[in-house]
Amino acid sequence: MITSSPMGWNSWDCYGAAVDEKTVRANAEYCAKNLLASGYEYIVVDIQWYEPTAKNHEYHPFTELVTDGYSRLMPAVNRFPSAEGGKGFAPLAEYVHSLGLKFGIHIMRGIPRQAVHADSPIQGTDRTARQIAKNDSICCWNTDMYGVDPSKEGAYEYYLSIFRLYASWGVDFVKCDDIAREMPHCREELKLISKAARNCGREIVLSISPGPALLEEAEMYKQYANMWRITDDFWDKWELLYNMFERCEKWSIHTGFDHYPDADMLPVGPLRQDYDVNDRTKFTENEQITMLTLWSIFRSPLFIGGEMTKFDDFTLSLLTNTGITDMHRNSRHAHQLYRREVNGNELIVWTSVSAEGGTYLAVFNAGETDARFDISLHEAELYGKYKAVELWSNEESTAERHIVTAIPSHGAKAYLLK
Amino acid sequence: MITSSPMGWNSWDCYGAAVDEKTVRANAEYCAKNLLASGYEYIVVDIQWYEPTAKNHEYHPFTELVTDGYSRLMPAVNRFPSAEGGKGFAPLAEYVHSLGLKFGIHIMRGIPRQAVHADSPIQGTDRTARQIAKNDSICCWNTDMYGVDPSKEGAYEYYLSIFRLYASWGVDFVKCDDIAREMPHCREELKLISKAARNCGREIVLSISPGPALLEEAEMYKQYANMWRITDDFWDKWELLYNMFERCEKWSIHTGFDHYPDADMLPVGPLRQDYDVNDRTKFTENEQITMLTLWSIFRSPLFIGGEMTKFDDFTLSLLTNTGITDMHRNSRHAHQLYRREVNGNELIVWTSVSAEGGTYLAVFNAGETDARFDISLHEAELYGKYKAVELWSNEESTAERHIVTAIPSHGAKAYLLK
Amino acid sequence: MITSSPMGWNSWDCYGAAVDEKTVRANAEYCAKNLLASGYEYIVVDIQWYEPTAKNHEYHPFTELVTDGYSRLMPAVNRFPSAEGGKGFAPLAEYVHSLGLKFGIHIMRGIPRQAVHADSPIQGTDRTARQIAKNDSICCWNTDMYGVDPSKEGAYEYYLSIFRLYASWGVDFVKCDDIAREMPHCREELKLISKAARNCGREIVLSISPGPALLEEAEMYKQYANMWRITDDFWDKWELLYNMFERCEKWSIHTGFDHYPDADMLPVGPLRQDYDVNDRTKFTENEQITMLTLWSIFRSPLFIGGEMTKFDDFTLSLLTNTGITDMHRNSRHAHQLYRREVNGNELIVWTSVSAEGGTYLAVFNAGETDARFDISLHEAELYGKYKAVELWSNEESTAERHIVTAIPSHGAKAYLLK
Amino acid sequence: MITSSPMGWNSWDCYGAAVDEKTVRANAEYCAKNLLASGYEYIVVDIQWYEPTAKNHEYHPFTELVTDGYSRLMPAVNRFPSAEGGKGFAPLAEYVHSLGLKFGIHIMRGIPRQAVHADSPIQGTDRTARQIAKNDSICCWNTDMYGVDPSKEGAYEYYLSIFRLYASWGVDFVKCDDIAREMPHCREELKLISKAARNCGREIVLSISPGPALLEEAEMYKQYANMWRITDDFWDKWELLYNMFERCEKWSIHTGFDHYPDADMLPVGPLRQDYDVNDRTKFTENEQITMLTLWSIFRSPLFIGGEMTKFDDFTLSLLTNTGITDMHRNSRHAHQLYRREVNGNELIVWTSVSAEGGTYLAVFNAGETDARFDISLHEAELYGKYKAVELWSNEESTAERHIVTAIPSHGAKAYLLK
Repeated sequence: MITSSPMGWNSWDCYGAAVDEKTVRANAEYCAKNLLASGYEYIVVDIQWYEPTAKNHEYHPFTELVTDGYSRLMPAVNRFPSAEGGKGFAPLAEYVHSLGLKFGIHIMRGIPRQAVHADSPIQGTDRTARQIAKNDSICCWNTDMYGVDPSKEGAYEYYLSIFRLYASWGVDFVKCDDIAREMPHCREELKLISKAARNCGREIVLSISPGPALLEEAEMYKQYANMWRITDDFWDKWELLYNMFERCEKWSIHTGFDHYPDADMLPVGPLRQDYDVNDRTKFTENEQITMLTLWSIFRSPLFIGGEMTKFDDFTLSLLTNTGITDMHRNSRHAHQLYRREVNGNELIVWTSVSAEGGTYLAVFNAGETDARFDISLHEAELYGKYKAVELWSNEESTAERHIVTAIPSHGAKAYLLK
Repeated sequence: MITSSPMGWNSWDCYGAAVDEKTVRANAEYCAKNLLASGYEYIVVDIQWYEPTAKNHEYHPFTELVTDGYSRLMPAVNRFPSAEGGKGFAPLAEYVHSLGLKFGIHIMRGIPRQAVHADSPIQGTDRTARQIAKNDSICCWNTDMYGVDPSKEGAYEYYLSIFRLYASWGVDFVKCDDIAREMPHCREELKLISKAARNCGREIVLSISPGPALLEEAEMYKQYANMWRITDDFWDKWELLYNMFERCEKWSIHTGFDHYPDADMLPVGPLRQDYDVNDRTKFTENEQITMLTLWSIFRSPLFIGGEMTKFDDFTLSLLTNTGITDMHRNSRHAHQLYRREVNGNELIVWTSVSAEGGTYLAVFNAGETDARFDISLHEAELYGKYKAVELWSNEESTAERHIVTAIPSHGAKAYLLK
Repeated sequence: MITSSPMGWNSWDCYGAAVDEKTVRANAEYCAKNLLASGYEYIVVDIQWYEPTAKNHEYHPFTELVTDGYSRLMPAVNRFPSAEGGKGFAPLAEYVHSLGLKFGIHIMRGIPRQAVHADSPIQGTDRTARQIAKNDSICCWNTDMYGVDPSKEGAYEYYLSIFRLYASWGVDFVKCDDIAREMPHCREELKLISKAARNCGREIVLSISPGPALLEEAEMYKQYANMWRITDDFWDKWELLYNMFERCEKWSIHTGFDHYPDADMLPVGPLRQDYDVNDRTKFTENEQITMLTLWSIFRSPLFIGGEMTKFDDFTLSLLTNTGITDMHRNSRHAHQLYRREVNGNELIVWTSVSAEGGTYLAVFNAGETDARFDISLHEAELYGKYKAVELWSNEESTAERHIVTAIPSHGAKAYLLK
Repeated sequence: MITSSPMGWNSWDCYGAAVDEKTVRANAEYCAKNLLASGYEYIVVDIQWYEPTAKNHEYHPFTELVTDGYSRLMPAVNRFPSAEGGKGFAPLAEYVHSLGLKFGIHIMRGIPRQAVHADSPIQGTDRTARQIAKNDSICCWNTDMYGVDPSKEGAYEYYLSIFRLYASWGVDFVKCDDIAREMPHCREELKLISKAARNCGREIVLSISPGPALLEEAEMYKQYANMWRITDDFWDKWELLYNMFERCEKWSIHTGFDHYPDADMLPVGPLRQDYDVNDRTKFTENEQITMLTLWSIFRSPLFIGGEMTKFDDFTLSLLTNTGITDMHRNSRHAHQLYRREVNGNELIVWTSVSAEGGTYLAVFNAGETDARFDISLHEAELYGKYKAVELWSNEESTAERHIVTAIPSHGAKAYLLK
């Protein structure tokens, strides 16, 4: 059970399928030193850690993967040397834990095609991979796995066997891919995975991908996952950020105790290092402020996508603003208050209640020009006189009936009113 | 501008198209004496007050209506005697005001077909009804009007002329029909009506019907109406009440200052008096408790549909429960917390914050058997120890981690936790 | 019962709603002299003959129409002087008949709104217009009528009363508008109209408009109408002609004895005379050849849309080509043989069997450049040696295995092979 | 190039995936002796001939298949002994040819998954199976293959390599499965297969499955295949036969030289022998007459699905009726004439022209009771006096204006009128 929305780092945005142990250790060390105090605690190794030849963000169709004798994927030792001798991620997890952090991995729904073709056994059963694979269930963007047929004897045992393995390694977080948007046809398979995660003997946060998840399945996600992606892969493009307002609006009432709709990783700082070590986020500083403001009032999980060891001051300050991380932790009942055209610009206002008292107002200028907005407090059903703190600037003022504020194009402000 | 969700009485459920002055006066008197203190203040005359021959809930196609010389409908004097001599609803409104109440009427979008065929003038213009009517815009269930073409000169003047007439009568509330669900094709016509209502010289609440309104037009409704129906006509059937949970869930984040999604009138007490004076609501007492609980935490407008002068004790107590009417006034950020199957029953939990402090939890048993539920406070993100008052019973207890409660089938409980 | 697809003239394309008696007489005289021998025999007065103020192709919303005392429309005497004294179209029909031609009129589905508002009686019944009108059934482009509710007593009697009136005038052809594409909601009304037409005491061809008719209703149209429009209004634009290939392909198997899918009037010669007497068809000669070829092999009704008295030689020759009008009469089992890209041009080939022996092949160049095509006779399942006559040029040749032919862009050739 | 619709036998209906050489030889011998004179000439080995363990109509997911060194499937020698030594189907084809018959096989679209996982080479290229496989293209009901990506170098060469192998064996007919209804996404792959079939050095009929094919792709099928299934698997159920009338109506104009929409195999005589040697078709004799009549006037390919060596007299006579097989060969321009309710029964009439002169009329009683029908010849545009032969009974009569005929429920009659 988790009582606040998870925070941490994920290797995908900066290394794609090619993350290695050295990188993970370096980022973990940076995180422990600079970001853990702000709440960032999960270090997550993303996809293809079981593939010896992975080089960048691209997948290798039908390539040979590392498996154990029980249809289970194992870390490629050439990329994760500490995994040698069948130790899996246990040594790396142990190191991450030693820094005060938690350790996570990515998995794909299903069972390796290799294991199905080899008809490998399922641990602790007399069943084989071929007997539990679902013939017509494949991922459309990756060739590693077949889906598992939940109606087959041995299906649950397979999933339990992999989660028990991860538990034995010390895994705290599993991001299960190729499932969140695959509804309703993968609903029973998700339930099986969820049950295995909860019965594996270790507290493991279950994050599911990719999005967009289906709104009409909201109650199901709430019961069977801790986080679910509400969007396809999010990258450093304004259009994607702009569209997130609507996604967050729709999902806002489904955020709460132990379950958090997920707007995806934060593409900040150095990205796509597998292609170009000089690549940096294309987002402007204002756009990054908009992103952090929206993610935080909405309580999306906050997973840093950039190579942290090369962060500049702005990026670090963006992620560690105390007012904002407090809002991320304390925001309750968040929802869009309204969205409207104001003098040719697009004004979006969100509100929420702070668990520590007071009301949050987040004000976004989604338009293309800098603008001055007059925000009526009555429209937020705030009728008295308030002390207002703008969280990014830490400026304090008295507010009654109105807040008048200048916001640059694509920028945002966040207020806590008491 | 209204700062809480409107409450009052509407003649439709008990008299259909056939309400008359005597009935309105009698209900107004009862309301002033018994319900005004609880907040019920609007007395609304529903459809066909301009039709001399209306007898019950049925419409008379193509029948003769009462109009003035300016394409405007006027009360039928045989049904509203005080309207004689062209005084319209002014005398009746005056009487209602004298009781401390407010007065409302129903109108249909558009201009009378009669006026179009007679090509009557539009007041204060050189235009005629025929010039502003929209050829292909008719209501599919009533033959009285043609829609007005917003692009035509004289269209706004027509709407302004009717709202000025209503303002001169002392009308405080207009329920405009045949428009709320007619989107997007009637969007511009709604904007015209809204503008006329706001510029007529009197504060008039604009309520629009029928539903279901379109969720994707939410921001537009928020700007141009004070209330909009989220459902087709609501009557005393469990199935309709059951479906309202989903409607309210979807609209919950669009309720606030000056704008209230409307779950329709409350079919309580004596109904359909035009057909049978002995007819009473088919809802059980538990279902009525469920209805009031949902409408109140969601802050739907509360318009009584029954013949009030014949209310029994239960009905009066249902509507005047102080805890519930307080919740209706103070509920903020309401939303469904979850909805799930529990031991074969369907449990629905809503939450909101009270403007006066504390958290509301409404717990519904939508299943077919009485049941006992264990409500985790952690799931509502309530982690401390609380004083809990159940509003229907006024029972007080201490709650920590859980509330365990027995709820009959189709029934509800409402808690205020502080 | 008709055994070949109707041919004639219709006033719409050249005069819109404003046709008058003088024009009809002049065109009838021209037709009798120049086109009757080729089969053009129906002279049809199109819409609004009952409206005194009609001036061109535009409709006058809610305008006053001429009716008799029985809810029936009557010709406007200012436009049709011979109709004076309640004689209706009888004198004009008599004149048309005297020329050896047949006489037709256009009507709108339904009953005049005027009659409904005046609550006029239905002839031979104790019912009134208001009692049979269907509240919510209106035409979206013309305000003259309400639909008739087929379930009402008096509905059939109304339609019978108008068809008996037309029969008494000597009407041979009725084009009923606002119905052909209004399926399935107007299906029962069409059946009523069809029954009235067949029981009125005179043989009347029933043509229904506007299109596009619905393919899935084909068997219904075949039973209840003689012609039905397969397209919205067709005008002199290549794009509309190009799209007709697909419409004709889909409807080809539904053409036969007594029922003919209708590709609409032929916009040839002088058009839109109500706006500009110098206006001529925008179709090139090749496009007109394509149109006549497709309409004829497909057996669409052939109704001339232009002002005939001002025809040039080409137009007259186009319409009176003996080979083509023979094909229109004798074509059987017509269908598209194939449609494909050939060297960047689009080749379309149709085939049919002649009732008098032989096979028709129509070859269309729907592409944008002149081209030479090699048409395999095997693909038409013609395996022998044939005498081939090209119908437009009347050139004769011997064909075996192939016909090689040059066709200009947007042009066509038509062959009869024996 | 084929000039009439193919006829023959296919092993699926009687043996599913488990057909063997002995069975093929026995049926070929029977066919040569009893059915070849009527036109049945193709002997087709259906799916899974490359799978050693196939036992019945069920597929074995992920099972081991027989391949050569070039990613190509080979006959399982345990089931087809003459294939030993890498000879493939050459010996069996030779035997079939020796009987005067032609030989066909079934294939699945794509390349064996086994070959992809083993990364086998593609003959005559430097490419491998993995390089041409399309990651996300699988069959949803069979696990043998991956689709081939037409944009990859080596893709065409792969298909050419398998068709050249088949040509070397003497294959005359290939039924390619998992493609006909997989449009538009498999359009380019079909074009590749078609090109390979036409360039392999032997005349091979290309039949594609499964249906329903997409009507809007008709011109594409006509160019790239000789037969395409217009239905999913057809079996001996009246409902499936009844639905075929509509399928055939829609596809009727797309039948002709070298291309034949395919209503699937004829489930007559002994079926499903892999499960029960006593199983016989569930169709009544009347239903079988309806099926043969419809298939023949429509010119569907006629492939016998039953175990021929155990045919009874009725079955053999059904398939060898000279009038019907003549109609199958000579029918031109076939289409449904009409379909309507007659006295509570459903009457369906088809017509076509005979290439040898005369008109066919097929009359079906699709209703549930025996009935007498009066068929108007005028409705078929037949206006003279005719000699009419009923093909099933061979009864001759004179027909003028009408044919009156009694037809049992689910039965049919077929007339040739001259």
